[in-house]
Amino acid sequence: IEEKNSAFIRDTMEGVNSADISALLDELNADMAKYVIDILDNEVGAEIIEDLEEDTRTKFLENFTPKEVADYITEMDSDDAVDIINELPAKTREEVISEIIDPDTAAHIHELMRYDEDCAGGLMAKEMIIANLNWNIVQTIEEIRRQRENVDRIYSVYVVDDKYKLLGKVSVKDILLANDNTHISEIYDDDVISVETYMDEEEVADIMRKYDLDVVPVVNLQGKLVGRITIDDIVDVITDQAEEDRQLMSGISSDVEEDDTIWVILKARLPWLIIGLVGGIVGAYVIRGFEDQIQTITGLALFIPLIMATGGNVGVQSSTLVVQSLATKSVFTDSLGKRLLKMVAIAMFTGLVLGSISFLVVYLYGEVKLGLVVAIALQAVVLLASFTGTATPLILDKLGINPALASGPFITTANDMLGITVYLLIANLLL
Amino acid sequence: IEEKNSAFIRDTMEGVNSADISALLDELNADMAKYVIDILDNEVGAEIIEDLEEDTRTKFLENFTPKEVADYITEMDSDDAVDIINELPAKTREEVISEIIDPDTAAHIHELMRYDEDCAGGLMAKEMIIANLNWNIVQTIEEIRRQRENVDRIYSVYVVDDKYKLLGKVSVKDILLANDNTHISEIYDDDVISVETYMDEEEVADIMRKYDLDVVPVVNLQGKLVGRITIDDIVDVITDQAEEDRQLMSGISSDVEEDDTIWVILKARLPWLIIGLVGGIVGAYVIRGFEDQIQTITGLALFIPLIMATGGNVGVQSSTLVVQSLATKSVFTDSLGKRLLKMVAIAMFTGLVLGSISFLVVYLYGEVKLGLVVAIALQAVVLLASFTGTATPLILDKLGINPALASGPFITTANDMLGITVYLLIANLLL
Repeated sequence: IEEKNSAFIRDTMEGVNSADISALLDELNADMAKYVIDILDNEVGAEIIEDLEEDTRTKFLENFTPKEVADYITEMDSDDAVDIINELPAKTREEVISEIIDPDTAAHIHELMRYDEDCAGGLMAKEMIIANLNWNIVQTIEEIRRQRENVDRIYSVYVVDDKYKLLGKVSVKDILLANDNTHISEIYDDDVISVETYMDEEEVADIMRKYDLDVVPVVNLQGKLVGRITIDDIVDVITDQAEEDRQLMSGISSDVEEDDTIWVILKARLPWLIIGLVGGIVGAYVIRGFEDQIQTITGLALFIPLIMATGGNVGVQSSTLVVQSLATKSVFTDSLGKRLLKMVAIAMFTGLVLGSISFLVVYLYGEVKLGLVVAIALQAVVLLASFTGTATPLILDKLGINPALASGPFITTANDMLGITVYLLIANLLL
Repeated sequence: IEEKNSAFIRDTMEGVNSADISALLDELNADMAKYVIDILDNEVGAEIIEDLEEDTRTKFLENFTPKEVADYITEMDSDDAVDIINELPAKTREEVISEIIDPDTAAHIHELMRYDEDCAGGLMAKEMIIANLNWNIVQTIEEIRRQRENVDRIYSVYVVDDKYKLLGKVSVKDILLANDNTHISEIYDDDVISVETYMDEEEVADIMRKYDLDVVPVVNLQGKLVGRITIDDIVDVITDQAEEDRQLMSGISSDVEEDDTIWVILKARLPWLIIGLVGGIVGAYVIRGFEDQIQTITGLALFIPLIMATGGNVGVQSSTLVVQSLATKSVFTDSLGKRLLKMVAIAMFTGLVLGSISFLVVYLYGEVKLGLVVAIALQAVVLLASFTGTATPLILDKLGINPALASGPFITTANDMLGITVYLLIANLLL
C-alpha cells in the first residue's frame, strides 16, 4: 500500500470480503484508507464504509468531498445510508444530501430521516419488492428484474392493494413454482406479521424473535407499507441492549469503550462512584450514631463488612432475576402473592444458612451474644435486600426506566446503608 | 376448550400464529394442551411444540406416545428435531427415534445427534437446497420443487462438486432471472463464507454478525457441505450469552429463572453468597488485627464502609470495560503499556476526586489527620481495584473461563478485603 501500486491492490482485494477489508482499514491512517477505497469499485467502497467502526468512519469521511460521500451513499441500503448521514456534522449532512443525484434515493433518505433512531421507522429500509394484488406472475417477475439493482437479498415479495395497504406476502419460491398466468391474489399468504413505524426497536426485536422472522414489513398508522426491517439490524439491537444492561449493572453511566479518551471514561465512571461515596459518608454518620457501643463492645465493628457485603450480594441477585424475567417477558403462572411468598421463603432459608455459619464463627471467637446479633442481623438484612432488590426493578420498569439500573451500584449502595443501620439497631436492642 | 368443541377450536385457531398458540398452551394444563394439538394439523402441531417453553414441553410430551412424538418431529427442521429429542429421557429418546418412518429424517437426526450442542455441528440443520456444479437451471428448479416440502425458506442454493465439496452459492434471484439452459457453473458465486462443524457457537455468531449473514453453510474437515445454520439460531446464542454474562455478574451460579423451584434458585444463589460471607469473615479478622487502633482512634471505624464500597465499585467498572472489549473483540490501536498508563491515569484522577471529597467531609467533621488517611487510602484502593479489575478478566479469558465472572461478587469480595487492609495499614502508618 505504501508504494501506491493500485493494480496490485485491486487484484489483491478482489474476492476478499468487504468486512475483512474494513477491519484492515480500521488500522490504517485516513489518507491511505481513502486511497484504497478510491481504487475500488463504488459498490465495494460503499460496503467497506458501512463496515468501518463509527469513530474511524467519522475521521475517514472528513477527507471526502460531499459529492464523493453522496456517491457512496447512493450505493447503500437506505437504512444504512441514513445512519451514516446522521453521523456527519450538520453542515456536511446538508451538502451530502444536496449532492445525491438519484431522486428516489434522495426521497427515501428524506423520509427515513424523519424517524427517531430507536423506533421501527428508524431501523427500516425502503429497498423491497412490492407486488400489486392484481398482477400476474409475469408482471411480478418483471418487477423483481427492475428492482434487482436495488435489492440485494429478496426475502419475500410484499403484496399491496392500489392504495399501498399491506395485504400479505408471497415467497420467491412460490413465484418460481407458479404458472405464468397465475395472479398474485391466488397465491399470496394473507397471514403476515407487521410492525408499526412508531414501535420501539426492542419491541420489534421481541416480535421478530418470537415469530422467528428474518424480515418484517413496516406499516404506518394507515396500514400503508412503508419499509422493512431485517434481522441483521435486530442482532445489533440485541447486542447493544446487552451492552447497555451490562454498563448499568456496573455503574458506568454512558456508552464508553476502553479506547475512548481518559476524559470520556472519567465522565462515565465518576457519577456512580460519587453516589457510592455519598452512601459511604451516610454510613459513617450512621455508625457515629452508635459510636458508644462500638467503643464498648469489642467485636461489633468487625462484622460491619460482612453485613454490608451480604446485603449487597443478595440485593443484586434478586434484582437480576427480576430484570431477567422482565427482559424475556416471561408469563408468570404464579400470582403476585405466591411470588412474594416464594421470595420470603428463599430469603428466610438464605438468612438461616448464612446466619448459622456466621454464628458458628463468632461463637468460636468466643462471643455468644454477638454471634446471635450477627445472625439475626444477617437474617433481617437478607430479607430487606431481597425485598428492595425485587421491588426496585419492578418500580423502575413501571416508570419507564431500564430496570437493569437496579442491579448496579444503586441497589448495592442502598443495601449497604440499610444493612449497617439494621445491624447496629439490632445490636443496640440486644446488647 | 372445556367443552371440547373441536370444530370451534379448529376454526378459531386457523390463521392464528403458532407462536401465539404456544404462549396460550404454556398456561393450560398438559391434558387440555394435548387435546388442542391433536385437533390441529400435524405441521401446525409441530410448530407449536417447537415454540413451547422447555419446561412445558417436557411435561407435555410425557402424554404422547413415542409414535406421536416421532410424527411431529418428522415435520420439524432437523436441528429443532434433535434439540427436542435431546430433551427427552434416554429411554423415550430411543423409542421415538425407532418410530421415525422417513429414512432421510432418521439419518439426519442420527448424524446431528453426534455433535456437541454448543458447536456449529449442534446448531446446523440438514434442510437446504444443493445444486451440482454441472446442472442447468431446469435441473436446479426441479430440485427446488422436489425439496419444497422440506425447506421452508430458501436462502441460497449451495453449489457443490460431485464429491459434495462446497464450491459456492447461487441466489434464488439469479436462478429466477437466468436462462433455462444456463449452467450453474456459469452463474454461481464462489465467494462463500462457511464455518466448520467443530467451531464454537459464539465464533459462528461473531462470523455471521461480522459478515451480516442470514445463513451460513457448514462444512466438515474435508470441506464437504454437511448443513447450514440460520440467523434465528444465532439470535438465541447471542441472547443466551447476554443472560449468562448477566448471571455471572450478579453472582448466580447457574441458569435459573424466577419461576424455578425454591431449591433450584437457592442452589444457584447460595455458593456466591457463602463466598462473600467468607470474605466478610476474613475482613473481620483483618479488622481485629487493628483492634487497638480502632478502640483508641474515634472515627477510624466510621469510614470502613466508604472504603469498601468505593473499592468494589471501581473494580466492577474496570472489569466491565475489559469484558466488553473482549466480547466485541475490539482491535486495540494502543499498546499494552499505553493502556496500562491510561488505566493508572484514570485511577489517579478518580482517586483525587473521591479523596478530595472525603477529605473535605472528614475535615469538616473535625479530624484533619484522619481525613488525610481516608483520602490517601481511597487513592490506593482505587488504584488497586482498577488493577485487579483490569487484570482478572484478562487472566480468566486466557484460562478459557468466561471473563464476565470477574465483574461479579468475585471482584467485589476481593476488593472489599483488599480495601480494608490497605485502609487500616495506612492508618497504622500515619496515625
